Amino acid sequence: MTETMNGAESLVRTLVDGGVNVSFTNPGTSEMHFVAALDRVEGMRCILTLFEGVATGAADGYARMAEKPASTLLHLGPGLANGLANLHNAKKASTPMVNIVGDHATYHRDYDAPLTSDIETAAKPFSGWVRTSPNAKRVAEDGAAAVAAAQNAPGQVATLILPGDTAWDEGSGPAKIPEIPTRKRVSEEAVRASAKALTSGEPALLLLAGAALKVHGLELAARIAAKTGCRFMAQTFNARMDRGAGSIAIERIPYPVDQAVETLKGLKHIVLAGSRVPVGFFAYPNKPSLLSPKDTEFTKLAELEEDIVHALEWLADELGATKTPITNNQYAPPKAGTGKIGAATLAPSIGALIPENAIVVDEGVSTGRGFFPMTQSAHPHVWLQNMGGSIGIGMPLATGAAVACPDRPVLNLEGDGSAMYTIQALWTQAREQLNVTTVIFANRKYAILLGELVNVGAQNVGRKALDMLDLSRPDLNFVDLARGMGVPGERVTDMESFNKAVAHGLSTPGPYLIEAMID
Amino acid sequence: MTETMNGAESLVRTLVDGGVNVSFTNPGTSEMHFVAALDRVEGMRCILTLFEGVATGAADGYARMAEKPASTLLHLGPGLANGLANLHNAKKASTPMVNIVGDHATYHRDYDAPLTSDIETAAKPFSGWVRTSPNAKRVAEDGAAAVAAAQNAPGQVATLILPGDTAWDEGSGPAKIPEIPTRKRVSEEAVRASAKALTSGEPALLLLAGAALKVHGLELAARIAAKTGCRFMAQTFNARMDRGAGSIAIERIPYPVDQAVETLKGLKHIVLAGSRVPVGFFAYPNKPSLLSPKDTEFTKLAELEEDIVHALEWLADELGATKTPITNNQYAPPKAGTGKIGAATLAPSIGALIPENAIVVDEGVSTGRGFFPMTQSAHPHVWLQNMGGSIGIGMPLATGAAVACPDRPVLNLEGDGSAMYTIQALWTQAREQLNVTTVIFANRKYAILLGELVNVGAQNVGRKALDMLDLSRPDLNFVDLARGMGVPGERVTDMESFNKAVAHGLSTPGPYLIEAMID
Repeated sequence: MTETMNGAESLVRTLVDGGVNVSFTNPGTSEMHFVAALDRVEGMRCILTLFEGVATGAADGYARMAEKPASTLLHLGPGLANGLANLHNAKKASTPMVNIVGDHATYHRDYDAPLTSDIETAAKPFSGWVRTSPNAKRVAEDGAAAVAAAQNAPGQVATLILPGDTAWDEGSGPAKIPEIPTRKRVSEEAVRASAKALTSGEPALLLLAGAALKVHGLELAARIAAKTGCRFMAQTFNARMDRGAGSIAIERIPYPVDQAVETLKGLKHIVLAGSRVPVGFFAYPNKPSLLSPKDTEFTKLAELEEDIVHALEWLADELGATKTPITNNQYAPPKAGTGKIGAATLAPSIGALIPENAIVVDEGVSTGRGFFPMTQSAHPHVWLQNMGGSIGIGMPLATGAAVACPDRPVLNLEGDGSAMYTIQALWTQAREQLNVTTVIFANRKYAILLGELVNVGAQNVGRKALDMLDLSRPDLNFVDLARGMGVPGERVTDMESFNKAVAHGLSTPGPYLIEAMID
Repeated sequence: MTETMNGAESLVRTLVDGGVNVSFTNPGTSEMHFVAALDRVEGMRCILTLFEGVATGAADGYARMAEKPASTLLHLGPGLANGLANLHNAKKASTPMVNIVGDHATYHRDYDAPLTSDIETAAKPFSGWVRTSPNAKRVAEDGAAAVAAAQNAPGQVATLILPGDTAWDEGSGPAKIPEIPTRKRVSEEAVRASAKALTSGEPALLLLAGAALKVHGLELAARIAAKTGCRFMAQTFNARMDRGAGSIAIERIPYPVDQAVETLKGLKHIVLAGSRVPVGFFAYPNKPSLLSPKDTEFTKLAELEEDIVHALEWLADELGATKTPITNNQYAPPKAGTGKIGAATLAPSIGALIPENAIVVDEGVSTGRGFFPMTQSAHPHVWLQNMGGSIGIGMPLATGAAVACPDRPVLNLEGDGSAMYTIQALWTQAREQLNVTTVIFANRKYAILLGELVNVGAQNVGRKALDMLDLSRPDLNFVDLARGMGVPGERVTDMESFNKAVAHGLSTPGPYLIEAMID
């Protein structure tokens, strides 16, 4: 270093050297030096969001598709706070992310100015790694550590807090990214024990997660199942699955507790391939938390952070299943739905409309629950879900996925209630002209909660309670909302118009929104 | 108790008995029993929001005007997370609030289901009091403790975490609210020392906060100033001030550091009446954090949690100033602005348009900085500001204030950038038909940050950096956004239309939005 370089520029150069090329931002005063450094460094694309939950959710969607972290840039404790719900989702999805949060200059924090808060404590419940950089000479090194930490298998949210003076004081120049350990391979004992469980002659399930849900992993699981007679399934929610033609049909454990219990009934063995013991999404009075039978024996083939695909290869080899014949999905889409718009007519239409290589974001909640089987024989696509259960992930996730894959159409399936948490994502989709087609399922209620009222045994439910689950009075108009943020769209009231509108959205560049009025 | 009553109903009855009559909610599964209990209990008004930051910001606005806490009802860690930015603001405003967050049933938490997180840790940086209720028998008592804690002077955010089974198991019936201590009176030493500082003959300032900014407190300060020759001012940001005709003209410490330093130059004494040592909102390279001269002596008359008004009465008495003549503001509004829309023409129009007994919410940011002096001789009104600096408070604050005071017109002055963080508030304003007139100052940029780039000394700023401060491409259309949420409105491009539109909004029932296109 012959020329002086401030901390901000040292950090941005470190990020770029570490392969972090995209930053989803909503900056403020304390981040101005970071922002100013952008123009002095080649190779960092900076994308403005109007709300921080869009930034964190987009960073999640980006990383799931790019398979490397993006960064965020958030403004002090409250900026972080606005991003926390989607950080929660990213944490549960084991998404690699470099979450950068500005803070007051180190010497200013003691004055307790209005925006002062305990950022580290706020970040901890929603991050896997948290560090506050102490000064400008250290900030590049801390940034490098964050880039590495984010990618430590299975991936995590690494939150780096940047006091203002770490940005504007003289820095060290870019720092070298520490080596990121490769995924650990599983032990021979794990493979042997899994093989034994699956060949016990008793009902057994191979439960998949993580990289096992890409085509190769799915094929291995299908071969193992064909060979041993075991079942194989995916968890209820999955960060990313290969689906459609060329992939392998797989069921997920159902969301409703009663159905899940029924699905897992009689199982004596569950082999966990990156997956976890299946538990209820919520607790309900007089329903179990654990979804499998009490006497089910669990065998761990691989932890999520281990090399799950290698473990499946080894297991297939151990079982002599590497060449066992299997059937990949053929392209055989259902016939698009006609007539009234509802869950039953929408499902086949989605299956018929998914284009080649699409990315499907699934936040259809109650309306979308039946879409999964009907999209199995669609064109090849990936399917992204919410791993943390905090609704309001769909629009940001679609935004980030579209940034990562500009040549792939993104179809965002979105409940009307969910859409409203992070609706600001539409503006970023318009600014960046992202190929996202958003379908809003407008049933004008938190429909899932109507079922949950019954599930939790709430009685004598009256008007005041029902009003809390009702999104009418006034009716939302998502076409107006989209237009207000520069996204064209249309409202449809029958399946014929729905099919036409979705096809139009998917085949034209830039974002488009369809508000499907559920009958 | 002869009949059984579950925990949820025991809690709701406790809240109502404690004077908590309004709940701003965004519930989920774990809160369904609380929701169901609403219809079994008279006297709790439940108001649905579509985003949790609206709920917490509205609870803040409600409490500032009603002078008692509202409750919230949020869904687990992520629901809390979405509400944290406005909780931060409420904490800094010392607003009393009963912040209720549902959690998984106690026995379900160990299973680490997707929505599980460490809610207590997330709540702590943004709450004054946090408690997780252990069981249904204790939940009413814990609720009562929260109601009391919220109102412990000067007021605080009391976060009560409710595991699902505390709601559905058999409860204890309502619990009694613990006694809330009255505000402590200041010591004779504090009054004597303050009197001495103000009569030293050296330049002195009486710096006011909290209840000192209501008419009676302001009159006392004016008398003291008239008697002693000291100056009196308010902090830069204030939770609530009485303004306009009948009140007392008062300046605030300017926001820009250089102006603030200039304003406080030469002061030898600052007497703190509920206020704090004035510090910069942010740190800037080569600018001080402390705004007053290094040799200024601070004298504490009253802490914010003490009886500030009584302290001023005592001080006035000590100084023989109780009858010193002062001049209250007369109604003498400026002439409404004409021609192009800009900060200079908007300021007199706001002064001319504020109606009798209005509540003005000030989130005008850069555009609104000059509104304060021009509204001094308007009709009597109160002025609410952001105490925590997290933008996105205006629309929720206006919503809550309108719920507290259905007979008072609310005028929300809002920057376009700020508006987008919690835009969902408009839907709640429409559903509840609240008398809120929102004025959006559409300059299509984060204008404040353009100044801050210079202030922090960022150099060689290029296109990529400036794009992060720019809200055009695409232009937002706030009239479309409002219509999409059921709020009528119009866009205006000259001051004549602006004046007409604001007068129309303020004089017609229900919400209205005016998008003022800054030239």
